[in-house]
Amino acid sequence: MTTTGNQDLTPVAGDALLIVDVQNDFLPGGSLAVPQGDDVVPLLNRYARTFRRLNLPIFASRDWHPAHHCSFQEKGGPWPPHCVAETNGAQFASGLDLSEAVIISKATTPHTDAYSAFENTDLGPQLQQTGVRRLFVGGLATDYCVLNSVRDAVRLKYSVVLLEDAIRAVNVQPEDGPKALAEMYSLGCFPGSVDSVCLDRPPPPALLTDLYQLTMLKAYHDGGMNRTAVFEFFIRHLPPQRNFLMAAGLEQVLEYLENLRFSPQELQWLRTSGGFPADFADSLEHFRFTGDVEAMPEGTVFFGNEPVLRVTAPLPEGQLVESRIINILQMQILAASKAARMVVTGRGKTLIDFGLRRSHGEEAGLFAARASYLAGFTGTATVPAQSYYGIPVFGTMAHSFIQAHEDETAAFRDFARSWPRNTLFLLDTYDTERAARKLVALAPELEKEGIPIKGVRLDSGDLADLSKKVRSILDAGGLKTTLIFASGNLDEHALEQLIQQQAPIDGFGIGTRLAVSEDAPTLECVYKLQEYDGTPRRKRSQGKATWPGRKQVFRQQDAQGQFQKDILAMVDESINGIPLLHPYMRHGKRLKPPTPLEHSRSYAAQQLSQLPEALLSLQPGPSYPVAISNRIQELAEELDRKNP
Amino acid sequence: MTTTGNQDLTPVAGDALLIVDVQNDFLPGGSLAVPQGDDVVPLLNRYARTFRRLNLPIFASRDWHPAHHCSFQEKGGPWPPHCVAETNGAQFASGLDLSEAVIISKATTPHTDAYSAFENTDLGPQLQQTGVRRLFVGGLATDYCVLNSVRDAVRLKYSVVLLEDAIRAVNVQPEDGPKALAEMYSLGCFPGSVDSVCLDRPPPPALLTDLYQLTMLKAYHDGGMNRTAVFEFFIRHLPPQRNFLMAAGLEQVLEYLENLRFSPQELQWLRTSGGFPADFADSLEHFRFTGDVEAMPEGTVFFGNEPVLRVTAPLPEGQLVESRIINILQMQILAASKAARMVVTGRGKTLIDFGLRRSHGEEAGLFAARASYLAGFTGTATVPAQSYYGIPVFGTMAHSFIQAHEDETAAFRDFARSWPRNTLFLLDTYDTERAARKLVALAPELEKEGIPIKGVRLDSGDLADLSKKVRSILDAGGLKTTLIFASGNLDEHALEQLIQQQAPIDGFGIGTRLAVSEDAPTLECVYKLQEYDGTPRRKRSQGKATWPGRKQVFRQQDAQGQFQKDILAMVDESINGIPLLHPYMRHGKRLKPPTPLEHSRSYAAQQLSQLPEALLSLQPGPSYPVAISNRIQELAEELDRKNP
Repeated sequence: MTTTGNQDLTPVAGDALLIVDVQNDFLPGGSLAVPQGDDVVPLLNRYARTFRRLNLPIFASRDWHPAHHCSFQEKGGPWPPHCVAETNGAQFASGLDLSEAVIISKATTPHTDAYSAFENTDLGPQLQQTGVRRLFVGGLATDYCVLNSVRDAVRLKYSVVLLEDAIRAVNVQPEDGPKALAEMYSLGCFPGSVDSVCLDRPPPPALLTDLYQLTMLKAYHDGGMNRTAVFEFFIRHLPPQRNFLMAAGLEQVLEYLENLRFSPQELQWLRTSGGFPADFADSLEHFRFTGDVEAMPEGTVFFGNEPVLRVTAPLPEGQLVESRIINILQMQILAASKAARMVVTGRGKTLIDFGLRRSHGEEAGLFAARASYLAGFTGTATVPAQSYYGIPVFGTMAHSFIQAHEDETAAFRDFARSWPRNTLFLLDTYDTERAARKLVALAPELEKEGIPIKGVRLDSGDLADLSKKVRSILDAGGLKTTLIFASGNLDEHALEQLIQQQAPIDGFGIGTRLAVSEDAPTLECVYKLQEYDGTPRRKRSQGKATWPGRKQVFRQQDAQGQFQKDILAMVDESINGIPLLHPYMRHGKRLKPPTPLEHSRSYAAQQLSQLPEALLSLQPGPSYPVAISNRIQELAEELDRKNP
Repeated sequence: MTTTGNQDLTPVAGDALLIVDVQNDFLPGGSLAVPQGDDVVPLLNRYARTFRRLNLPIFASRDWHPAHHCSFQEKGGPWPPHCVAETNGAQFASGLDLSEAVIISKATTPHTDAYSAFENTDLGPQLQQTGVRRLFVGGLATDYCVLNSVRDAVRLKYSVVLLEDAIRAVNVQPEDGPKALAEMYSLGCFPGSVDSVCLDRPPPPALLTDLYQLTMLKAYHDGGMNRTAVFEFFIRHLPPQRNFLMAAGLEQVLEYLENLRFSPQELQWLRTSGGFPADFADSLEHFRFTGDVEAMPEGTVFFGNEPVLRVTAPLPEGQLVESRIINILQMQILAASKAARMVVTGRGKTLIDFGLRRSHGEEAGLFAARASYLAGFTGTATVPAQSYYGIPVFGTMAHSFIQAHEDETAAFRDFARSWPRNTLFLLDTYDTERAARKLVALAPELEKEGIPIKGVRLDSGDLADLSKKVRSILDAGGLKTTLIFASGNLDEHALEQLIQQQAPIDGFGIGTRLAVSEDAPTLECVYKLQEYDGTPRRKRSQGKATWPGRKQVFRQQDAQGQFQKDILAMVDESINGIPLLHPYMRHGKRLKPPTPLEHSRSYAAQQLSQLPEALLSLQPGPSYPVAISNRIQELAEELDRKNP
């Protein structure tokens, strides 16, 4: 520890990430499984995201053996057959995101083995070529391929950061892992973890739930009730102010599920302050989410009663996650659906999320930034949205900047010199038109310094009127290419009005009314048990009855691709239409790497383009037809008869 | 590192916290200052909170020297005079929370010195008496009193966890700190940090702000603008649905300010993805908030235009924190103000926050739990609110629990046996009255097992009608002491109606409408520059003009203590009335330890009791009079004349 205090673990030029052998055969269920080997996948994805953001190289090694490799027992080697080239066992973990990674195959010939990613590969030369001097190493297994790769790296004079949270040991002998760690530290490796390397927010604790989830879990534990349960998340009714909703937040749900575990501090809370018996707390020590997830892709347009996400899992697992799943999905659906109305209304205009301060806390601000970008916004002012989600961030100055200067012109000049390529000036601190004239007067001086006046922002007053006046002043002053942005309690209705009034505004900053979805700040969203142990279930509470069973939404389109009608049916019904729910997780593991937000954003744009015109109106439209299949209706009636 | 992997750092029975010498003379500005010694205070407060929650002992040592102690240079010792008993220099740091801590004074006689907290004190015997076997040690200074205390602890066979993030070294020689660390680890200490020991959420990153705060900071950096700025947070107008607002969230603002620093990853982001020049990023490496904070105590009732919080700080510091301060305060004020209406309406009834799932993300759920408890709620269902804030948590079962069982009676029985002291049954899954009858039928069986039926919950339907019917069924069945709780889209209006209808409901679970403050999900809250470099400032944007200068709110009460009128005046005006803003932070340090939430809650209850009756109505009342002093009005006019 003493030597590591001063080591800055921030990746910089000269650093590379090396992901060692995260292949199916080394994961639980594989032929040479490393216990909890799959735990490293979400962590390595976070590291990889950091390295990609910084344009730093990523290498992923893999065993890529011929069919009868010398390391196999049949050939006198120590191991069962594993990672035979082109087989499923040799594939990387399905959820591992290796986009932009260089793949290093090793031990590819029958008679040579290689634990180290450097052995008979071109990893060394490639690292040299790209000027790498420090390697961040994670993967499988600590006591074999990680250890041997690190030994070689140190021998070759690379500085090594060992990603302690993203390695797991085989432990043929129980001390193998600790011994390997000790050796690597004695070789001078520095210990790293996502907290010290990555710039993102750790997922919330497992205890972020309602207490009743835990009291029920204990009762299930006592009663041995852990058969398969099916829960569906849906929204009962659209609020009157919404003609459609947009699915959002799935990525965060998947992240939550794959990282879900109880820390020692949380188990201790259960035993002490929580008042839970020790045996129950103990039972949660190795708790993992091992279920399946089907869901609508983010950006999908959907309607009332349609399942957006289904969890199929042992009852306690499916139950525990209810509160947080709703908590994630509601907020992002709210923000995406509100933003989509603005995107549709302000088509072609630049839209920037300014909502952080009026969001309900930290995560709400980040979720609003993410969901509005998904729905088609251009970017956000919320800084961490860039590093967490890769969203473009925008920002220049506030009124206080102007006020802190003795006069406006001085403020404009100071800012222009500090940010010669980001010159967007706020005009309304004292008198908007006067400020525009001051800017025109300042322009020649700035032009001499090579500084263009890119834009201005109006934040108060009659924006239609002021934007026209400011446009005239700017045009008359030769600033014809200077853009006009507007902000200040805007929503889609204000946008529509400004556009109708032909206000010469090029872009909008949208804050409060987006960030809290002001006209509909909540949705009737629920996560309901639809089946337990093979039997469909139905809640019949007055006004809150649910459709039972595992369901699919089939969407029918016309020849031009316009959405015509949705049919809610059982998953195994054969219905004409495009099924909207897709599999994302099996047995607690992702079926594919995280979907890039840009992909979801394109998909969302396409979805909006397929919506019937009437639903795009800001006024309440005719409701979109969602039919309930006969089989579902029959099943509901049957259940009601059984449990009258 | 290898030896620490298996060490569980969760505090358990047998553990104690030892806080070494966090006294004024060892803090910056003191006679024997440890560089950045004050950084340990917020961290030690988090450790102490954890130990208090677990009812584990806390010890705090202090130098407590006579006036001419042998360690002072005048007596041939190595040090300047310091920590002379009863002087300010010997006091613990003003912000350090030592409630429930045992104080250990050392080196109290002229001729004996003691670096170790064990030396000539009764710490050893006290630890033995309380059965302590492991010590968690933090404080000042790493290379003197911490080191020597740890040496003694190890010699006395205590296991030691060194709280690495909560110690600082004097470093008379630059290697003293690292050497001391090396020695302590070689003695077998385990490294601990708040993340591995405490169960609370780390404060959000410094980059949780709007980009324009950072672009302005760079311009201020370039222009050398770092004179003192005064910002005030206030709410322009009360929403029409609110007759008063309640201050909330100050604790989180203070925590944010005292922990505010840029991590190496964040500085790296600025230099790379952020596009900021390196010299600017470098300038933020040692960024600290060094300003002053005045504020209304949490729980204070306030009105439009009244400053709730004032920040006086070098311009860049006061500017950067704007976004997050509004983000924290708005959400908590929203929730506290909404909850206060329910508390007033449901006077005497149990009110529980059920809002997590419909809150806007993680922090919104926690803030809603905290703010509603502050306002007088009984507790929350949101689990981490217990460990983070000490709020009582409640919870039993959901509909899915009933549905997962073959029949309701079986579900009730299972739950009762699993939770014989927490028997609150949900009745409305299928048919509320029928379920009540099933429970009555089950009661004798449970009674034989010694299990009382504490309560039932209704979550749908006509709650007034159903509660009366259920009350009759329970009473007729001999369950006269069984309580009735209700939930399901409730708000203060529903509460009022149910109470008017004399519904026999003992308590309410309140979710959605509280958690997002549904009828007023945002406030017109702003944080405005009021003065820079000694000159008052005023923004005049249309509809958004502000009152300039540093202000105080004076509240006038009648003889019975009822609030009569507030007067907004300059801080130095002599006005009849109780000043509402109090100092909380000077030079970035707390003036007192965190205010216990229970204290703020009592204060909030008192505030509500002093409100004029008309404002307590759920209907819009007459607006409470807030006068603007003549001096403020004159100043505003003067500024308008100067900058027309």
